[in-house]
Amino acid sequence: MHSIAEDLARQPEPGFVPADRVQRLGTETVFAVSAEAAALASRGRTVYPFHLGDLNIPTADHIVEAMDRAIRDGRTTYCPNAGIAPLREALAADVSAARCVTYAADEVSVQPGGKPVIGKFLMAAMNAGDEVLYPNPGFPIYSSFVEFLGGVAVPYGYLDAGDRYAIDIDAIERRITPRTRILILNDLHNPTAGECTAEELERIAELALRHDLLVLSDEAYFDVRFEGASRSIVSLPGMQERTVILYTFSKKYAMTGWRLGAAIGPRPLVDIITQLNVNLESCPNHFAQYGALEALTGDQAGPREMMARLKGRRDAALRILNATPGVRCHTPESTFYLYPDVTDAVRLTGCAGHEDFRRLLLDATGVSFCTRLHFGKALPGENRYHLRLAYSGVSTAQIEEGLGAFKAFIETTEPAGS
Amino acid sequence: MHSIAEDLARQPEPGFVPADRVQRLGTETVFAVSAEAAALASRGRTVYPFHLGDLNIPTADHIVEAMDRAIRDGRTTYCPNAGIAPLREALAADVSAARCVTYAADEVSVQPGGKPVIGKFLMAAMNAGDEVLYPNPGFPIYSSFVEFLGGVAVPYGYLDAGDRYAIDIDAIERRITPRTRILILNDLHNPTAGECTAEELERIAELALRHDLLVLSDEAYFDVRFEGASRSIVSLPGMQERTVILYTFSKKYAMTGWRLGAAIGPRPLVDIITQLNVNLESCPNHFAQYGALEALTGDQAGPREMMARLKGRRDAALRILNATPGVRCHTPESTFYLYPDVTDAVRLTGCAGHEDFRRLLLDATGVSFCTRLHFGKALPGENRYHLRLAYSGVSTAQIEEGLGAFKAFIETTEPAGS
Repeated sequence: MHSIAEDLARQPEPGFVPADRVQRLGTETVFAVSAEAAALASRGRTVYPFHLGDLNIPTADHIVEAMDRAIRDGRTTYCPNAGIAPLREALAADVSAARCVTYAADEVSVQPGGKPVIGKFLMAAMNAGDEVLYPNPGFPIYSSFVEFLGGVAVPYGYLDAGDRYAIDIDAIERRITPRTRILILNDLHNPTAGECTAEELERIAELALRHDLLVLSDEAYFDVRFEGASRSIVSLPGMQERTVILYTFSKKYAMTGWRLGAAIGPRPLVDIITQLNVNLESCPNHFAQYGALEALTGDQAGPREMMARLKGRRDAALRILNATPGVRCHTPESTFYLYPDVTDAVRLTGCAGHEDFRRLLLDATGVSFCTRLHFGKALPGENRYHLRLAYSGVSTAQIEEGLGAFKAFIETTEPAGS
Repeated sequence: MHSIAEDLARQPEPGFVPADRVQRLGTETVFAVSAEAAALASRGRTVYPFHLGDLNIPTADHIVEAMDRAIRDGRTTYCPNAGIAPLREALAADVSAARCVTYAADEVSVQPGGKPVIGKFLMAAMNAGDEVLYPNPGFPIYSSFVEFLGGVAVPYGYLDAGDRYAIDIDAIERRITPRTRILILNDLHNPTAGECTAEELERIAELALRHDLLVLSDEAYFDVRFEGASRSIVSLPGMQERTVILYTFSKKYAMTGWRLGAAIGPRPLVDIITQLNVNLESCPNHFAQYGALEALTGDQAGPREMMARLKGRRDAALRILNATPGVRCHTPESTFYLYPDVTDAVRLTGCAGHEDFRRLLLDATGVSFCTRLHFGKALPGENRYHLRLAYSGVSTAQIEEGLGAFKAFIETTEPAGS
């Protein structure tokens, strides 16, 4: 037998052929930027990491201690597929209060991060051929997983409303067809930091109701804000019944590496998402959920201090960016992203476009950032250049030093440009 | 606007319609047994939990301490999508040494558990319409996710080989067609605890080579054994190139609740699995991976002591089961499962079948267990009754008390039966 097996083994390898759907699977190109930045740093250059939406702020000690208590209490075993009951109850209470609606614990399915909600929502609700409206610029995973599952990803854009970015609601309305089934909304938006006015949110809700759309409301940044109050589309009449909220502990509590979030929505849909937990990972990490429970129900000084630090960073970055020739940046009230319009700076520096500008500035100043192109292909008619700067992973000193160099470099090239 | 939205909201809710694929999604029916056991316990009854493959043994302290050090070192941020480099390297080294092959770190993709490897392997490699051979009885998620993705799940059975359970390799051979693309193998098998002889494994490898099959080798119990040495199909000529190993920390290191495992296999396939990490959860919990690294590279006293305890439980359970009228049980060298043939006991007790027997014994003795039916629909021609008893979550004292009552109950019904 062995010799036969060896003969067969000697036959030329046919090579692995991926499933067809894999050709339609996208990724996050930001990781390529991280790799470039790391390569530059490894050559001894100072790099200012504005490219990644991660936090250089540690998780609060009382959260870690609650997790360790859970381990000492034996929480190293499996837990229920939808997560531990007290966390589901605490999430239902927190999200209900902040959105002026009522969720029950059994409308919450805890997930290993916020991101799993995107994939599981689509697996549960979207058929091949269904059209799904998604924001572009936007988080690249929306269209990636829609297309992976055989759906049709239909982009809608954002408009510069003078002092903020606003969803192009006319574009949503224009692009709705009888095949449109799902609207992905990311109010408090990555990358533009745009958010809807009450009137805009109502208009979007109307479209969802009129055309019987399900809504995935990615609220990853709902609690990451400096002034004002966040709005959720679930607060509007008729919307809670047709919306699944993507909730995450990552940003508000500096818990990105914990990988904990939740799908919150109508029981029939959330039950299927939990059945997908059974199939895909059984349950999220058991003891980490007690840390998340403490984050939600314990001392809120951590998030308050974090927001104060982030506001200082935001203001420092805005001061320098808006004093830089060819750069214009709005002042967002939420998220930890800035989305400056650098169209004139691109021209001043004689760059051919987004990537050319990004590489030039990274090489010249060590400032590493993403551009609009890391959040989807430019839409027809788009004729401005934008960057996305995340200030969640850089100190105010780094911001002043890095963006100072960014400003100086463009200033020196200005005469040549004019 | 608001009033219009309210009017629309008052329209009768169309109700949520799941995606078509959801009708094909299965689950683990063991969770229903857990619920029944919990209900009985809540009525004050003593329940002996033999139904769940979880461990009542805590994770070793040095593993938890390594995780806490990582948190103090700031590992609460995102980590690389495929997991931290030192863990990938340690897994490559450990799995290579134990299987006499060579894996590189970039052939390892860390996962939030072993289970995710099943879904991601199928998403990466299986097209709709492909036929996938899977063990039945077996882990119910194999066929669930094959069918969810539009594949054709083709079962193969196990045979009673007198002193052990053996894969029905003739059945595999008979059921291979030109559409067969994947073979799912779970040597060191849940639920039968069966494992292949060297000759049997070679015969299966030959079939895979001859018919150009990809193999998912679920090796969750590879390191959970009392005597002898485990074999992996990847050790056979030509097989490493066409096999993905499902590795998990859950069982060997009593880390079920940590949700950490890995996909280990050919780079092109593992790269797609990592791209699925990017889309589905970004990365596994960051700091927990340092615990897994310590588990793999640190003191191995924990697993040794655990196996000694499990062996004591196995022997206690076997003593009682094989002294019970109408019950016959082999002595497995690995896993923490027993798969007694209770055909005669079912007749003695006048039960109609698996479920009838399970409910009767649960109610009469508090012994909670799964039956063959929790691991797939009985195959044509199957005419024996089997239970699956997990002794990973019960003490030796509970085994003697619970299975003692189990034995006594059947003994008392014996006269009536004979």
